[in-house]
Amino acid sequence: MRMLTVYLLCLSVLAHAQHPVAFATKADLLQLKGQLNRYPALTASYTDTKKMVDAWLGKEVDVPFPKDPAGGYTHERHKENYILMLNGGLLYNLTGDRRYALLVRDMLLKYAALNPGLGKHPQATSSSPGRIFWQALNDANWLVYAGLGYDLIQPMLTPAERKTIEQGAFKPEVDFITKDLESWFNLIHNHGVWACAGVGIVGIATDNADYVRMALHGTDGKSGYMVQLDELFSPDGYYTEGPYYVRYALLPFYLFANALNNARPELKIFEHRGRILRKALDAGLQQTNTDGRFFPVNDAIKEKDYTTNELVTAVNIAWDVYGKDEALLAIAARQGRVMLHTGGAGVAAALAAGKGAMAAYPYKTVEYGDGPKGNQGGISLLRSGTGSNLTSLFFKYASHGLSHGHYDRLGIFLYDQGNEVLADYGAVRFIGVEQKWGGRYLPENKTYAAQTIAHNTITVDETSHFKGKEADAEKNPGQKIFSDVKDPRIQVVAAKEEKAYDDVRLYRTVYFLQLPGASKPLLVDLFRTVSDNVHQYDLPFQYNGQLISTSFAYQSHTAQQQTLGKRNGYQFLWKEAEAILKDTMAQLTFLTGKTYYSVSTLTGDSAHIFFTRAGANDPNFNLRRVPSYIIRKRGTSKQFVSVVEIHGNYDPVGEFSGNAYSSVQDISLLREDGDYTIARIRIKGKELIVAQANKEYGAALRHSISAGGKPVEWTGPFGIWYEGKPLKN
Amino acid sequence: MRMLTVYLLCLSVLAHAQHPVAFATKADLLQLKGQLNRYPALTASYTDTKKMVDAWLGKEVDVPFPKDPAGGYTHERHKENYILMLNGGLLYNLTGDRRYALLVRDMLLKYAALNPGLGKHPQATSSSPGRIFWQALNDANWLVYAGLGYDLIQPMLTPAERKTIEQGAFKPEVDFITKDLESWFNLIHNHGVWACAGVGIVGIATDNADYVRMALHGTDGKSGYMVQLDELFSPDGYYTEGPYYVRYALLPFYLFANALNNARPELKIFEHRGRILRKALDAGLQQTNTDGRFFPVNDAIKEKDYTTNELVTAVNIAWDVYGKDEALLAIAARQGRVMLHTGGAGVAAALAAGKGAMAAYPYKTVEYGDGPKGNQGGISLLRSGTGSNLTSLFFKYASHGLSHGHYDRLGIFLYDQGNEVLADYGAVRFIGVEQKWGGRYLPENKTYAAQTIAHNTITVDETSHFKGKEADAEKNPGQKIFSDVKDPRIQVVAAKEEKAYDDVRLYRTVYFLQLPGASKPLLVDLFRTVSDNVHQYDLPFQYNGQLISTSFAYQSHTAQQQTLGKRNGYQFLWKEAEAILKDTMAQLTFLTGKTYYSVSTLTGDSAHIFFTRAGANDPNFNLRRVPSYIIRKRGTSKQFVSVVEIHGNYDPVGEFSGNAYSSVQDISLLREDGDYTIARIRIKGKELIVAQANKEYGAALRHSISAGGKPVEWTGPFGIWYEGKPLKN
Repeated sequence: MRMLTVYLLCLSVLAHAQHPVAFATKADLLQLKGQLNRYPALTASYTDTKKMVDAWLGKEVDVPFPKDPAGGYTHERHKENYILMLNGGLLYNLTGDRRYALLVRDMLLKYAALNPGLGKHPQATSSSPGRIFWQALNDANWLVYAGLGYDLIQPMLTPAERKTIEQGAFKPEVDFITKDLESWFNLIHNHGVWACAGVGIVGIATDNADYVRMALHGTDGKSGYMVQLDELFSPDGYYTEGPYYVRYALLPFYLFANALNNARPELKIFEHRGRILRKALDAGLQQTNTDGRFFPVNDAIKEKDYTTNELVTAVNIAWDVYGKDEALLAIAARQGRVMLHTGGAGVAAALAAGKGAMAAYPYKTVEYGDGPKGNQGGISLLRSGTGSNLTSLFFKYASHGLSHGHYDRLGIFLYDQGNEVLADYGAVRFIGVEQKWGGRYLPENKTYAAQTIAHNTITVDETSHFKGKEADAEKNPGQKIFSDVKDPRIQVVAAKEEKAYDDVRLYRTVYFLQLPGASKPLLVDLFRTVSDNVHQYDLPFQYNGQLISTSFAYQSHTAQQQTLGKRNGYQFLWKEAEAILKDTMAQLTFLTGKTYYSVSTLTGDSAHIFFTRAGANDPNFNLRRVPSYIIRKRGTSKQFVSVVEIHGNYDPVGEFSGNAYSSVQDISLLREDGDYTIARIRIKGKELIVAQANKEYGAALRHSISAGGKPVEWTGPFGIWYEGKPLKN
Repeated sequence: MRMLTVYLLCLSVLAHAQHPVAFATKADLLQLKGQLNRYPALTASYTDTKKMVDAWLGKEVDVPFPKDPAGGYTHERHKENYILMLNGGLLYNLTGDRRYALLVRDMLLKYAALNPGLGKHPQATSSSPGRIFWQALNDANWLVYAGLGYDLIQPMLTPAERKTIEQGAFKPEVDFITKDLESWFNLIHNHGVWACAGVGIVGIATDNADYVRMALHGTDGKSGYMVQLDELFSPDGYYTEGPYYVRYALLPFYLFANALNNARPELKIFEHRGRILRKALDAGLQQTNTDGRFFPVNDAIKEKDYTTNELVTAVNIAWDVYGKDEALLAIAARQGRVMLHTGGAGVAAALAAGKGAMAAYPYKTVEYGDGPKGNQGGISLLRSGTGSNLTSLFFKYASHGLSHGHYDRLGIFLYDQGNEVLADYGAVRFIGVEQKWGGRYLPENKTYAAQTIAHNTITVDETSHFKGKEADAEKNPGQKIFSDVKDPRIQVVAAKEEKAYDDVRLYRTVYFLQLPGASKPLLVDLFRTVSDNVHQYDLPFQYNGQLISTSFAYQSHTAQQQTLGKRNGYQFLWKEAEAILKDTMAQLTFLTGKTYYSVSTLTGDSAHIFFTRAGANDPNFNLRRVPSYIIRKRGTSKQFVSVVEIHGNYDPVGEFSGNAYSSVQDISLLREDGDYTIARIRIKGKELIVAQANKEYGAALRHSISAGGKPVEWTGPFGIWYEGKPLKN
C-alpha cells in the first residue's frame, strides 16, 4: 500500500477523453454491432466470445493470490481473467447488457484489492520477475488486456470506482514495471514492446499522459515504443529477433498503435517510418511455411503458426487501417476467425464475399536486411514452386537477434511441400507445461538448441560461434557479400562471417537453381573456411526424415553408444555411426514425407562423417531424438561443396516408388583458391559448372581464367553453365 | 516354350460365354456409360483414367524382360502395365474407341511373346518366386488385372489372337503358379487368395473351366477360394492375418466374387456363408483409426488406410451387391474416388445426392472371434467417444495370424483422438523402396517388430512367446476368458495365454471405464502371471509421445548407452534410463498430440523400470527411434496393476495447458491370489474398487468375500465400485 499513497499526487492527467477509445471508439462499436449478424466469421467469433463470457455471468471469478508458474492454476486463471475482461467489456458495448460491465468491474475491483499488496512472484526466476505472474512479461500482457477491458466499461463506472481501479489495479503494476524494472521497461526487445504497450494502453484508458509519455519514449525519453518501431525492425520490416518473436511482438505493436490511432490520431502511427507496421506484418507472414508455421529462427516453438491470436489481431487491424488485401485475406481464411473489431468485420465481410475461394498466400523470394538501417546482415528466403509444391530455402546471416538469438551464422534450412527437410531444432521449451520447468525455456535451450552444432552451419573446433557469448555475437552481425535473385531459375546468395572465430573466416554461397527440364530446384552449397592454422570443421545436415541409403560403407555403433563430444552442444549427440572417406563423393539419401532428398558432398582429401542423434545427456527427456549427418574436415582452409537434391516420390498407400536415387554422379573442384572456386557437378550425365569469384564481386567485373585446362569467362560474382551452355555468365 | 506345347491338349473349355463378363457385363458397361457425366466422383474417376490411358495411345508400351526388384524399373513398369490393361479395356467399352482395345491387345501380345520364355525372376529370394516379378504374389496380381483387361477386349480379338494370348500370356503363368508352385497355390493365406483369384479370373476370361475349378477348389479339390472364404475368416468376418492383410486380401476376394457373380451366378457367392464377404469388409473397416489407417496388427505398414485401391474396389462392389449403406458412404466420401463400375456409379450418385455431408463412419465396440469357427481366441476393440474424440483400445488374444503374425498374445494398443498413444511398432518395411532390400520385409521385421518385447504385453525371461516359433504359436491360439461390453460405460475383457511359456501362465483383464463425471475413459489393466518358479517379467508401455514427467527419480545413462539385452528383440533397445522402485506407485506422464496421458503402475515389493529407445544394432537405420517404458518384476507369480488415464490438454499455439497431472493418487491390492484380485485405486480423492474372480467366471455366480477387512460381494466375473457405490456388482 506504500506506493499507492506515496505516488498518488504525482499523477498528471490527460485531457479527459471520450471513452471507450483504446480498443475501439463508440462509433466503431456501433458500426460493429450492426454487422454482427451479417458475416459468418464475425457471427461465429461473436457467438464464441459470448459463450465464453456468458459462462461467467452471475459467477464469482477467482482472482487468486499468485502462486503457480506457467501451466499452474493461478497463472492460467489470471491469463483467462485478462481475456475475460476485454471480452466482457466488448460484449457490454455490443449488447448494452450491464451484467457484462459489472463482471469486468468486479474483477478489476478484485485486482485493485490484490495488486497493491503483491511482491515478487514466488516462482520468479528471471531478472525481470512479475507480480501477478512469474515473469514481468506476463504482467505486461495483463496490463494490455486489463487496460482495454477497463477502457470499454469506464463510462459506466462511478468516479470512486475509477479511482479505486486506477490506483489499486493499475498503478502498482505500472509503477513496478516502470520503476522497479525500469531498465527492463526501457529495453528494445519484445518484452519492452509489451511493457510499453501495457503502460501506454493503461495510460490511454485512464487518461494518464505520464503513462503514455513513458510508453512512447521510455522513462529516459530515449527508448519506448517509438524507438522500438525504429530499431527493432529493419527498413523492410525484418524483426531482429526473428519471425517467431515478431509473431509475439506484433500483438502489442498493433494493439497499442490501434489505441494511439484513436486517442492520438495526430501521431499517424500507422504511417510511421514508411508504414513499418505493415512491412513488419508482411515480413512475418513471408517467413512462414505453407502450413502457416513460423520458420524456427532463433528460439522458436515450431507449432506456432499464423492462426494465433497475435496474427488474427494484426491481420484484422492491418485490414482496417491499410485497406483490403488479397494476401491478408488468404491468411484470414486459414485463421478462420476474426476479432470483434471493425477490422475483423471488414475481413469477415470479404471472406463472406469470397465464399472461401481464396488464393494461397503469395509466398515469394524475399531478402531482408537486419538492423535499424538494414545493414546488419540479414536473411534470404529463396523460393521455388507454388501452392503445396513450394520449396523454401532459408539462409541466415543476420545479427544475433538479442537474447533469443542462436549461434548459427550462415545457417540454412530447407522446407519442401510443407515439410521441414533440413531442420532447425527450434527451442527446447514446452510452453505452458508446468512440469517442464513451469513452461520456461529449458536448460537445453541454451546448452543445445542455441549452439552452432544444432544448426546447418560450420562449427570450428567444437566451439560455437563467438564462443557462445551473446555480447560478442551482438556486436558483430553477419554480412551479405552479394545476392542475385531476380531470375527465379538462378537465385544466388553469398554471405560471410569473419568474426565468429579468432582466426577462421567463413564464406558460404547458396545456389538455388532450377535446371532446364527439372521439376524441383537444386541447391549447390559452397561453404569455404579460410585460416592460416589447422582447425576442425564440422558441417551438419540436420535431416528430418528416414535414412534410406548412403553411397559409402560406415561403422555402426551397434551395441554401445557414446557422445560426439563433451561441450558446446556436442555432449547431447549420440554417435550412431561414422566413416572416414577419402577423395570421393559422400551421398546420403533420406525420405521426408513422400519425397526423396539426397545430399552429395565432396569429401576432398579426407572427411570424417558422423551419423548422430540428439538425446545424450538429456536426463529429463527434454530433447527430440533428431538425427544429423555431420561432415568433418581438418586442415587450414577447407572447402565444402554439397549438392542437395529433391527427387522422386514414395507412395506407401499406392505402393509406388519412383526416382528414388540421386542423380548426382560426381562432384569435383576445378579450381579452389582465394580468388576463385570452380565446381563441376555431373548430374545424370550432364555437366553443371558453377564458378564464383572469392575476392572481387563487382557486378560488371569480367573474369577470364583457366580451369581444368579450359578458359572460363564470366561477368559478375558468379557464372553457371549446364550442358556446356551458360545459364548465366 | 516347353509347357506351351506339352499342356496344349489338356485344356478343357467352358461353354463359350458372353464377354465381357469378368469385371462387368456388356449391360453393366452400357449402364455405366450413361452415368459417366452425371456424378462428379464418377466423372473425375473417368477423366483420371482416360488421362492415364490416353497418354499411352499411339505409343509403344514397354514390356521389359524382368530384372529389377520392387521399386526398380521393370517391376514398376509391369505393375503399371497391368493397371493399364484393365483401364484400357474399360475405356474401349465405355467409349467404343478401338485404339484402347488395340493398346491392350498389343500389350497382351507382347506378354504372349515374353511369358513362355521366362524362368524364375533373377531377384527372387522367397520360396514362392515369381517370373514377371520377384515374388509369385505379384505375378498373381498380374493375372487378376491382365485377365480382366483381356476379358474386356476379348470380343474384338481374332480367334488367332485369342489363342496366342491365352496360350502365350496366360497359360505359362497359370501353369507356373498351379504346378511349379502348387503347394503355394493351395495355401490358405492372402497369397493363395490372390493366386486363386488370378487363375479364376483368367479362367472366366478365357472360358477355361479347369482354371476356374482349380481356383475355386485348389488343385487338390480341398483348398482354393471356397476354402479360403470358409477358413480365413471367423464367422463374424475377422480375417486371421489381421486388418492390414484383410485390406490386401479383400481386393482379390471381391474382384473374383464379382466375376463369379456374373459368370457363375448360381454360386450365389456374395451370399456364401451368411454374406461372409460383407462381414469381412465391415470387420476390416471397424479395425481402422479415425484417420482411416488400419490398426497395425501383425506385420503392418502403418500408412495404409482405407483410401487404397483395394478398399475402393471392395466398397464399390459391396454397394452394388449388398445395397446402399450410410456407413460405406462415409468411407467412400473419404476415399474421394470410385471405380469405373456400376458399384462405383452407385456410390458416386449417393455422394452427389448427399453433397458431401456424410456422417462419420460408425465406429463401435466390436469383438471378433478368430478361426473358421470363431473359437481360436480373437480380438476385442473397445471404444468410447465419437467422431474425432474417439478412443479405441485394441486387445489381442487371437491366433497367431499365419506367417505375418507377431508374438504378442494379450497385447494391447490404444488410440485416442486420431493419435496412436500406446503403440504397436507395425512392420519393418519400406514398401516399394528399392534401396531398402527391394521393398521387402527387412530382417528387423522378424528380429525386432515381431518379437514380444516390441509390443505391449509381457515377455518372460527375455524370451518371446512360443520362443518365437511360428508353428508352436499357430497350434495354440489365445483364449478369451469372458467379456462384458454391453454397457458402454463398463467394458471389460479377460483373456489368457497358458501355452506361450512352459511354466508360466498369463492372464490379462482390461477394464475400459467411463467414470461418472469423467470426459474420457480410464483403462484399468490387471495383468497376472502365474508360475511355480522364479522368472523375470517385462511389461512395456510403448508410448508414442514426449515424456513429460515421472513420479520417481531414475538413473539416466547420459554419456554412454548400452542395449537392454542381447536377443529376442532386446538387442535393438538402448537403455536410456532406469530405476529400481519398491512398494510404491510408478507414474509416467507423456504428451501425445495435444493431450496428456499417464500410466500409473503398482510396483509391488520391487520393480525395475527401464526407459528404452529402439535403434541399437540397427546399422542400416531401418528402425524408427521409438521409446518404451518397461516395468520389470521378478518372482514366481506376479501381478501388474496399471491405470492408463487420458487427461488435460495442451495448446502450444494458444499457450494453454490444463489438467496436466495424473489424478491417480494411489493403487493398492486388497487381495491377490489364485481366487481373487481386488484392486483399490484412489483418483482425485475418490475410491475405485475393481474386484475380479480368477478361477470361477460364471455370470450368475455370487462371490462373497472379505477384502481389506470389509465384506465384498458381487455377481459374475467382476465387480466395480466408485465412491462406495457399485458401478457394477
